[in-house]
Amino acid sequence: MRLNQKKNHIIYGLNNCLSFLYAKNDFIINSIDININSPAHKSNQITQYINKNKKIVRLLNNKDFCNKYMYKHSQGIVINFTGIIEKKLDAIEDFKDNSCLLIADQINDPQNLGQMIRTSECAGVDGIILPKHNSVHLTDSVLQVSQGAFLNIDVFIENNLTTTIKFLKSIGFWVVGLENSIEAQRWYEIDYKGKIVIVLGSEGTGIRKLVRESCDFLATIPMEGKTNSLNVSAALSAILFERHRQILQIK
Amino acid sequence: MRLNQKKNHIIYGLNNCLSFLYAKNDFIINSIDININSPAHKSNQITQYINKNKKIVRLLNNKDFCNKYMYKHSQGIVINFTGIIEKKLDAIEDFKDNSCLLIADQINDPQNLGQMIRTSECAGVDGIILPKHNSVHLTDSVLQVSQGAFLNIDVFIENNLTTTIKFLKSIGFWVVGLENSIEAQRWYEIDYKGKIVIVLGSEGTGIRKLVRESCDFLATIPMEGKTNSLNVSAALSAILFERHRQILQIK
Repeated sequence: MRLNQKKNHIIYGLNNCLSFLYAKNDFIINSIDININSPAHKSNQITQYINKNKKIVRLLNNKDFCNKYMYKHSQGIVINFTGIIEKKLDAIEDFKDNSCLLIADQINDPQNLGQMIRTSECAGVDGIILPKHNSVHLTDSVLQVSQGAFLNIDVFIENNLTTTIKFLKSIGFWVVGLENSIEAQRWYEIDYKGKIVIVLGSEGTGIRKLVRESCDFLATIPMEGKTNSLNVSAALSAILFERHRQILQIK
Repeated sequence: MRLNQKKNHIIYGLNNCLSFLYAKNDFIINSIDININSPAHKSNQITQYINKNKKIVRLLNNKDFCNKYMYKHSQGIVINFTGIIEKKLDAIEDFKDNSCLLIADQINDPQNLGQMIRTSECAGVDGIILPKHNSVHLTDSVLQVSQGAFLNIDVFIENNLTTTIKFLKSIGFWVVGLENSIEAQRWYEIDYKGKIVIVLGSEGTGIRKLVRESCDFLATIPMEGKTNSLNVSAALSAILFERHRQILQIK
């Protein structure tokens, strides 16, 4: 896999594609396929775009569109584009005072990663770091679930997360791992102001040992129910909006 | 639709089915279908259960199982059971001091409702109220996404949410609606201790007017990103764990 390099990607779904078409970005749109019997073809905003960009738009009838695309949530629009959406961290030089990065250690479910990108973007996270191996990356499904959020947040793929954490610590970041363990503090007892990295592991196995040992703090969210298994993107939301609260309250 | 009545349901997926088989409940299991070439058939806990309950277990080869069940996340196990999982609120008499109920006004995406049930159960919510019309109810997909959480939380279906809110107010509940509006307070400025109802609307249209006007408080979660569209289950997680924080901090 080569990073910082232009690649072809596909996005689909009405909101996702509208965000894409109307956001400022450097992507090159190769084609926009629209099902003429779909909500996408009835959308005013899509129609406006079609009229201005006739060359790249292909209008397909329902049968042709469905034969070509099997996506469950396409809503009748698929965009093929070229651009860089997976980067390397060293491409970034400056981090502002209250920067927040997320490290997602070996998340495998596209639904979870897509939601995590969406929630992170809404909560003001500056970038998401994924390991190169044993992790889902920015697949078509992930982009779709993120609802266009991937356009406004950097996603980095790194070979070795412990090396990445070491580097981030060297430039002033504190690292908080979310994990259920007796040494962990309650999630709201941690100070998230300043430069913070939040580390989450996969739902099945948690953060890997070496990555966990690189954390400065461990946070836990004690559960009140019987199932005791909060979805990883729900846990992320709880922790990111606790950070958001802490930052808003001192303003 | 008749409530408080036994109906047939289907659940699938390994965690979901394990939670179901090993939880105390009054459900009658009609059948357990297992794909002999699946993770489910290799699970020790499933095997133990199979050996004790041979009469209701059917072992199917991969082809037969896949012909019968098209579920994407079945992981080779499908349980058919009979029981009451949708109730009426008047079946409940007592609410304890820090009770919390969720009203989900016209949520239509099974993925969202399933996640909301799962997050609510983990965060100690006592019950979820859904409107009878224009809302997804406890479908097979919703049960699957909830990962067994539906076993430990009451789900109520009510005809008229404003009447329900009136009733809940009469027995001492305060009602907080989550909505982006200028009258709304920041979500952490609201006191969630005591008997609380949290009301969320659908992602597209928010809480309906009459339901919103029945709320005592309106809460908003200001966004930091550009997309400005937090998923409804992520918003729920933020607000429920803010409540959880407030309750834990006074203990």
